[in-house]
Amino acid sequence: MNPPTGVPSASRDRSRPVFHPWSAQGAARQVRVDGAAGCWFWDRDGNRWLDLHSQLGNLHLGHQHPVLVEAVGAQAARLCTLAPSYGYEVRDEAARLILDTMPDAMRSVLFTNGGADANEHALRMARLVTGRPKVLAAHRSYHGATDGAMAVTGDPRRWSAEPPGSRTVRFFGPYLYRSEFHATTAEEECERALRHLRRLIGYEGPETVAAIILEPVVGSNGVLVPPPGYLPGVRELCDEFGILLIADEVMTGFGRCGAWFAGDLHDVVPDLLTFAKGVNSGYVPMGGVAVGERVAAYFEDRPYPGGLTYSGHPLACASAVASIGVLRDDKLVERAELLGRTVLGPSLARLAQRVPVVGEVRGVGLAWAIELVSDRDSREPLAPYAAPGPLAPPMAQLLAACRERGVWPLVAANRVHLLPPLIITETELERGIEAVADALTAVFGGHRRVTTGPTGVTT
Amino acid sequence: MNPPTGVPSASRDRSRPVFHPWSAQGAARQVRVDGAAGCWFWDRDGNRWLDLHSQLGNLHLGHQHPVLVEAVGAQAARLCTLAPSYGYEVRDEAARLILDTMPDAMRSVLFTNGGADANEHALRMARLVTGRPKVLAAHRSYHGATDGAMAVTGDPRRWSAEPPGSRTVRFFGPYLYRSEFHATTAEEECERALRHLRRLIGYEGPETVAAIILEPVVGSNGVLVPPPGYLPGVRELCDEFGILLIADEVMTGFGRCGAWFAGDLHDVVPDLLTFAKGVNSGYVPMGGVAVGERVAAYFEDRPYPGGLTYSGHPLACASAVASIGVLRDDKLVERAELLGRTVLGPSLARLAQRVPVVGEVRGVGLAWAIELVSDRDSREPLAPYAAPGPLAPPMAQLLAACRERGVWPLVAANRVHLLPPLIITETELERGIEAVADALTAVFGGHRRVTTGPTGVTT
Ligand SMILES: Cc1ncc(COP(=O)(O)O)c(C=O)c1O
Ligand SMILES: Cc1ncc(COP(=O)(O)O)c(C=O)c1O
Repeated sequence: MNPPTGVPSASRDRSRPVFHPWSAQGAARQVRVDGAAGCWFWDRDGNRWLDLHSQLGNLHLGHQHPVLVEAVGAQAARLCTLAPSYGYEVRDEAARLILDTMPDAMRSVLFTNGGADANEHALRMARLVTGRPKVLAAHRSYHGATDGAMAVTGDPRRWSAEPPGSRTVRFFGPYLYRSEFHATTAEEECERALRHLRRLIGYEGPETVAAIILEPVVGSNGVLVPPPGYLPGVRELCDEFGILLIADEVMTGFGRCGAWFAGDLHDVVPDLLTFAKGVNSGYVPMGGVAVGERVAAYFEDRPYPGGLTYSGHPLACASAVASIGVLRDDKLVERAELLGRTVLGPSLARLAQRVPVVGEVRGVGLAWAIELVSDRDSREPLAPYAAPGPLAPPMAQLLAACRERGVWPLVAANRVHLLPPLIITETELERGIEAVADALTAVFGGHRRVTTGPTGVTT
Repeated sequence: MNPPTGVPSASRDRSRPVFHPWSAQGAARQVRVDGAAGCWFWDRDGNRWLDLHSQLGNLHLGHQHPVLVEAVGAQAARLCTLAPSYGYEVRDEAARLILDTMPDAMRSVLFTNGGADANEHALRMARLVTGRPKVLAAHRSYHGATDGAMAVTGDPRRWSAEPPGSRTVRFFGPYLYRSEFHATTAEEECERALRHLRRLIGYEGPETVAAIILEPVVGSNGVLVPPPGYLPGVRELCDEFGILLIADEVMTGFGRCGAWFAGDLHDVVPDLLTFAKGVNSGYVPMGGVAVGERVAAYFEDRPYPGGLTYSGHPLACASAVASIGVLRDDKLVERAELLGRTVLGPSLARLAQRVPVVGEVRGVGLAWAIELVSDRDSREPLAPYAAPGPLAPPMAQLLAACRERGVWPLVAANRVHLLPPLIITETELERGIEAVADALTAVFGGHRRVTTGPTGVTT
């Protein structure tokens, strides 16, 4: 028996050793990053980009924040790994600080490795607590790529990845620009979306529905900000029918939307709140489920059937403790609210007026999307709602134009998402918007200057 | 609108902020760990334990290995996080080094956060590549706690967590001590287990079976080492019917069984190989899927529908690079083989002879289990195969007796698992086995001394 020695063999082709998510491997051509700091990252050839997507909505504190780097290094020197069954100070501290950012009703935190498994466990808890099988989930939503999370995802990423027999029923959330309910005002959209949800619950059978899972502000499906009464209305429906509300705050949490959690904007308290990304700016993989009173009570004397090796990982916990400290000390949540209200929102409103290809801009805090249309009247999307694969040609051109101008937003389907780090300066933000506007007009035509002049209104 | 300020509220009870996996929350009482080094960890009260379970089979290099601590700190100072879509040197390097430890046919690595999501993606790939729905998975197996991984798990942890409609068909693997096939020799068990698998494939319809997933040495379900011809036989069946073989090497990989991978012990090359734990001793959450030729070819020009935010996390990759370097430089894989063959195996064989409650000891490399029975003739298990919850009273007593003696093995159902770090010294190992033997005899009776005297044989 000769076990391989671990010495490279000449016969192996190792030129493309990484298998790329969401891509055809032959097509995956990458920019190679060499380093990053604050809101910027760069390659070896001297190209630098302003990070307007925060590495997938992750990087609230920007790249290489000294407090986080220090915290990770210090914890590494203390204790790197520990099985979940042991108590450990920084694990408790992280859980406590996380709970302190949340509504009082949240009782404890099950730590996971990321967003997908946080949702997996929240869904399992909801089914066990209620004894009911079905989950209502939204079209235009993303909850992660493991089977349980894909089963409630409502976007094209699920088309070839969704497990059968998922016990998911999909509903339409509010999206006034493309209203499913033929609404013409926000109030109407809200009222009709709630009526639709109530009717769906009635048709499915209220006593068969364990949970409603939703993103309080829909993230990667277009930054859909719900009208004021919607989330409270959903909460009421849940209470009326004994359904649990799962708020997926993986992208919206920890200040992204100008409040600690997007649910806070409407004073809505979920039964289960899932998080990842902003909890520690992704410095160490971490996610989790905050467990509300009803769920906590149920599992007080019944074992919860789920877990994972790296639950409550010491490095991840240490980085979360440090990160929450910085968010608080530097008042970054308040900053996100202010920058969104006074800089990003108004600038994008001006952009919408001046660039005809822009159908709508929308957002809150530091989460914004620009939706592009080939025709403003028909609102025909500039690129299709399509399965994973390369961007549609005009959108690929737009991303290239942005990159040439030193900014890197997230471009998906017919949208440009702007999710800058919460530490971005006003100047950086204005410069970033200018560059995106410039790229848009270069590719699609229209007026360029957007950061000066009278404040516009969102279309 | 008043977002919570993140300041602790006096009304909140924060005494138990962490939600514990696999437990009733009220029952979860924990030892609080204060620190750890090498094969030892300790609490604040001066208790120290020899880590004989490697924090869930994780810690090949022991606690706080200086090379790994240094690598994590150094990478933290360089770059902590980066979206998967960018190329980055340490990411490529980790993938290359991982592939170099594997059979030539493995082409690339999809990085995940842990073992469960590695299996999720391997299963999805297998179904897409073959276009077939079903997966064959073993009774007595564990593949993780997300829905897709639970769907193929074959142990009591799935009883209340398994998703419906899972398209899984379960088979019986070889387990001579409790043979499903009434076999009396290893050869017979092997031949009959393969016949059973062939028959099952025939009944299910070969063209409906996408993959067979198995642990090449079954880990948390009892360290079941397959007889010599079994894995090659499974590989042949897969080839005959166009079925993909998924080797879950999450627990067995990177030297645990005295070879880089347990499949290497039988020269069996899987189509997909999943890993986690030993890849970096869990210093940073990481798992992955190594993708063989057939799967790589399929996704060359078809987008793979799956991914995750922290795929190829820089800190995790840096720790994997460092860890593989140490495994190689210090010849720890060879060391695991030697220690298993010359120390752990023989000592446990002697223990089996002298302690009547021991039904069987079995293992390979540094993965061993002691199976306890109330009666050696009937082989009645000393504790039931049961759903998650507290240990059966005699097993809880045994674990307490081990802890009092300064060793901490993994105790599950009617078994004691010994999975020491690969860096353990011979003296530590002997001392550890002595302590476990002493605990066993203190609780159940029998002769104590096992590490001297003539070498016994496994029962
Ligand atoms: C709202 C939301 N939920 C869940 C996820 C999945 O998180 P992860 O990629 O960490 O599995 C994401 C990721 O983008 C997300 O945006
Ligand atoms: C063989 C095997 N597969 C998968 C897993 C799941 O890994 P994780 O806990 O990282 O999700 C485990 C964990 O113990 C395992 O032993």
